Amino acid sequence: MSGFTGVNSLALAGPSDLCFAEQRDQAEAVSRSRAGAVIVPLDFPTIDGPELLRTTRPRERFFSIAERFVPRPAAAGIHPSAVVDPSAQLGEAVSIGPNAVVGADTHIGPRSVIGAGSVIERNVSIGADCTLEANVTIQRNCELGARCILHSGCVIGGDGFGFVWDGSAHRKVPQLGRVVIEDEVDIGCNSCVDRATLGETRIRRGTKIDNLVQIAHNTDIGAHVILVSQSGVAGSSRLGTGTVVAGQVAISDHLEIGAGARIGGQAGVTKDVPAGATVFGTPARPMKQTLRELAALAQLPALLKTMKGWRAELMALKLQLSELERSLRKP
Amino acid sequence: MSGFTGVNSLALAGPSDLCFAEQRDQAEAVSRSRAGAVIVPLDFPTIDGPELLRTTRPRERFFSIAERFVPRPAAAGIHPSAVVDPSAQLGEAVSIGPNAVVGADTHIGPRSVIGAGSVIERNVSIGADCTLEANVTIQRNCELGARCILHSGCVIGGDGFGFVWDGSAHRKVPQLGRVVIEDEVDIGCNSCVDRATLGETRIRRGTKIDNLVQIAHNTDIGAHVILVSQSGVAGSSRLGTGTVVAGQVAISDHLEIGAGARIGGQAGVTKDVPAGATVFGTPARPMKQTLRELAALAQLPALLKTMKGWRAELMALKLQLSELERSLRKP
Amino acid sequence: MSGFTGVNSLALAGPSDLCFAEQRDQAEAVSRSRAGAVIVPLDFPTIDGPELLRTTRPRERFFSIAERFVPRPAAAGIHPSAVVDPSAQLGEAVSIGPNAVVGADTHIGPRSVIGAGSVIERNVSIGADCTLEANVTIQRNCELGARCILHSGCVIGGDGFGFVWDGSAHRKVPQLGRVVIEDEVDIGCNSCVDRATLGETRIRRGTKIDNLVQIAHNTDIGAHVILVSQSGVAGSSRLGTGTVVAGQVAISDHLEIGAGARIGGQAGVTKDVPAGATVFGTPARPMKQTLRELAALAQLPALLKTMKGWRAELMALKLQLSELERSLRKP
Repeated sequence: MSGFTGVNSLALAGPSDLCFAEQRDQAEAVSRSRAGAVIVPLDFPTIDGPELLRTTRPRERFFSIAERFVPRPAAAGIHPSAVVDPSAQLGEAVSIGPNAVVGADTHIGPRSVIGAGSVIERNVSIGADCTLEANVTIQRNCELGARCILHSGCVIGGDGFGFVWDGSAHRKVPQLGRVVIEDEVDIGCNSCVDRATLGETRIRRGTKIDNLVQIAHNTDIGAHVILVSQSGVAGSSRLGTGTVVAGQVAISDHLEIGAGARIGGQAGVTKDVPAGATVFGTPARPMKQTLRELAALAQLPALLKTMKGWRAELMALKLQLSELERSLRKP
Repeated sequence: MSGFTGVNSLALAGPSDLCFAEQRDQAEAVSRSRAGAVIVPLDFPTIDGPELLRTTRPRERFFSIAERFVPRPAAAGIHPSAVVDPSAQLGEAVSIGPNAVVGADTHIGPRSVIGAGSVIERNVSIGADCTLEANVTIQRNCELGARCILHSGCVIGGDGFGFVWDGSAHRKVPQLGRVVIEDEVDIGCNSCVDRATLGETRIRRGTKIDNLVQIAHNTDIGAHVILVSQSGVAGSSRLGTGTVVAGQVAISDHLEIGAGARIGGQAGVTKDVPAGATVFGTPARPMKQTLRELAALAQLPALLKTMKGWRAELMALKLQLSELERSLRKP
Repeated sequence: MSGFTGVNSLALAGPSDLCFAEQRDQAEAVSRSRAGAVIVPLDFPTIDGPELLRTTRPRERFFSIAERFVPRPAAAGIHPSAVVDPSAQLGEAVSIGPNAVVGADTHIGPRSVIGAGSVIERNVSIGADCTLEANVTIQRNCELGARCILHSGCVIGGDGFGFVWDGSAHRKVPQLGRVVIEDEVDIGCNSCVDRATLGETRIRRGTKIDNLVQIAHNTDIGAHVILVSQSGVAGSSRLGTGTVVAGQVAISDHLEIGAGARIGGQAGVTKDVPAGATVFGTPARPMKQTLRELAALAQLPALLKTMKGWRAELMALKLQLSELERSLRKP
């Protein structure tokens, strides 16, 4: 594969790009592609056009090659414009981008990359092989495991949203805890993970969080959880291992979401969800129930019309019966 | 109009400010205003107070004057604190703000303004007359047309959210594509546009995107689309020309939204939407259908009570008929 | 209390930490805790373990002590990497962090702290004792009262989202107003407050705004309002004093929300809400009505089945009556 300089989609590829196709009905798109070569399944049609590389699992094979094309930071080392506190401990081959700020008593593990404009406050610990893209913020005392990816604009360790009404104003409850993010967690652009009031907000190993997601204080997000864009988890809620939360879902505070639960898009979860359950709707109910209710609702307008007819029939029947009774009584 | 130093609302204007009023019932507000002059329709009442400037289309006339008051960057040129890679190509009169970062092999068109703290990564191309406000991020390889406005905190080119479960962990699908933004596109504060897995995420000419909007990887957002705040479009979906997406709408992945479609606030779109259609609800249905269902639902609690009455009537009728039959059979 | 170096949760506390417990059923957790001391109610059980400090209101007492542990910025003063315009007026003991940018004609009140990487544009006024965390943006001409807290990534003064279709394109309505934020307002991470088209977007005294919240142009957010994460208020709407807006709520434009109103999670408010009212649902209706409708909806699938039975009964009854009549007429 040494001749390829990139990977691309069939439509946009050029002669030095590698592509893939999985479906037989992509044959025409493959033949029209300017790609240098296309990885296809063993039984893919023979066509004119780019060279075909036949294999059993074209998608897997392709992405395993594609990983080699993921760009690495231009150069390791500390950019002269970065502000790094002298007390910071940096592992070997750490890269710190232009205008980044690294606070006192921080610890950054080997080969981690801090993007341009990112701010790492004091006493933060970052594991090995992490990537922080540009303009990330990690506030004081927070901890990040190894091989994490933090995308641009995300904020780790903002204050939890806690206030007590003192009779004349909302008085701020001091937020003195921190955020702990375990290994291999990804956090999307402009997402927020708030520090605990006391103790920890924890995101466990392997969890993947999309853009614009809100993780409130004192939550415990289990391992291998998926949180899709614009979803939010309110204070102190706990998500079990492997929970899948779709886009724009809201999970209320102090709830327990069981392992492997699936929360449908835009659901509003107001009660605990048992392990393995699938819920949907606002308030969230078991998926089947919500779908059944929605199907019934679709019949309701027609039903209301029908029922006016029935009402008339019922009244007519009543009258008919009374008439009959009266006629029988008469003689 | 040379005597005016600003434009303002009637309530806040001072003697050197220009205002406008469209409705006759604003006459009292106009007379109370301290404005220097007020642009009004030809048939506006004559009042004491500020000078009235009568014209056929006061709003249009006003905003066409108001445009002259939009502030320009204080000074063109590269601020000494900015970090600009020597390989970057800058057009004439480009302005780069304090602590901004411009990466290698970037190209910035004439008169474009890069706000303070913004980060433009390597191999990015920006057209002429663009404005990037403070703290914007554009990641590697992305392309921006002419006359675009990117508001503070927005992130262009974050990784798409793609993972494959490999039996023990979510394995990241490398995101090797880019984002292409055509001419005259505005993107709001803290909004996110993700790079394609392969190929392009494309936002077409003249589209306007509000704050905190999520545009996922491989989407194709048509020309002149409106996306209101906190809406989101999931992976690979395509929006036709002139689609209007209201606030907090979610559009699922791999959908086709036809040209001129209108998506009502908070809708959850799970199916293709035909051109010109208006949809609403979660899951989104034709607007009229959803409104009819909601109207029917409002009658349902009363209906349930009524129906208990009918049930009783039906039972009574049944009994009455049986009694009658028995009484007739007896003799 | 001088012996304590921190406050923490019972589970995570060490021997130099102070904790609190309110409920008698926390007795076991208290006895297991490694805390140095625990503040408890007067009637808390006597247990082995940490020293107990008995008081009437343990939570209040605890948090009043805890406030002393909120960290202060490492050092007042202007970091050498910050870019501060010579015309900026800084009060005594102002702290400006690394790589922050402070524009021309700004005014920053005494003891206020500007976090690393934050950008304050020209002609901004910030009151006394404010905290701006890292990577905050305040755009030109905006005003901030005293004792405000702006969390990382929030953007104050982005352009309002205003366009007019001119027959071939969305033409931008210039956004020439500003944002005024009164005293003791908190704004969460990555939240956005847009400048007015003309005049002011105003957030009144004591209001607390969570993360990822959208406040559109020309809105007037009353005093002591609570806006929970991912909620949004559209253009020109007004929220009365003490309104409570739950997570992911959308409030449409040009609405009046009365003082003390409560908006339930994910509601979509499309009409004015009277003072003190509680609303829920999309479109938002009085909470009781929405709950009644949801309860009725839950019965609907069963009702539809039942009604098929009734239909059959009604038809049978009709037939029975006709038969009876015919049999009576026969002879």
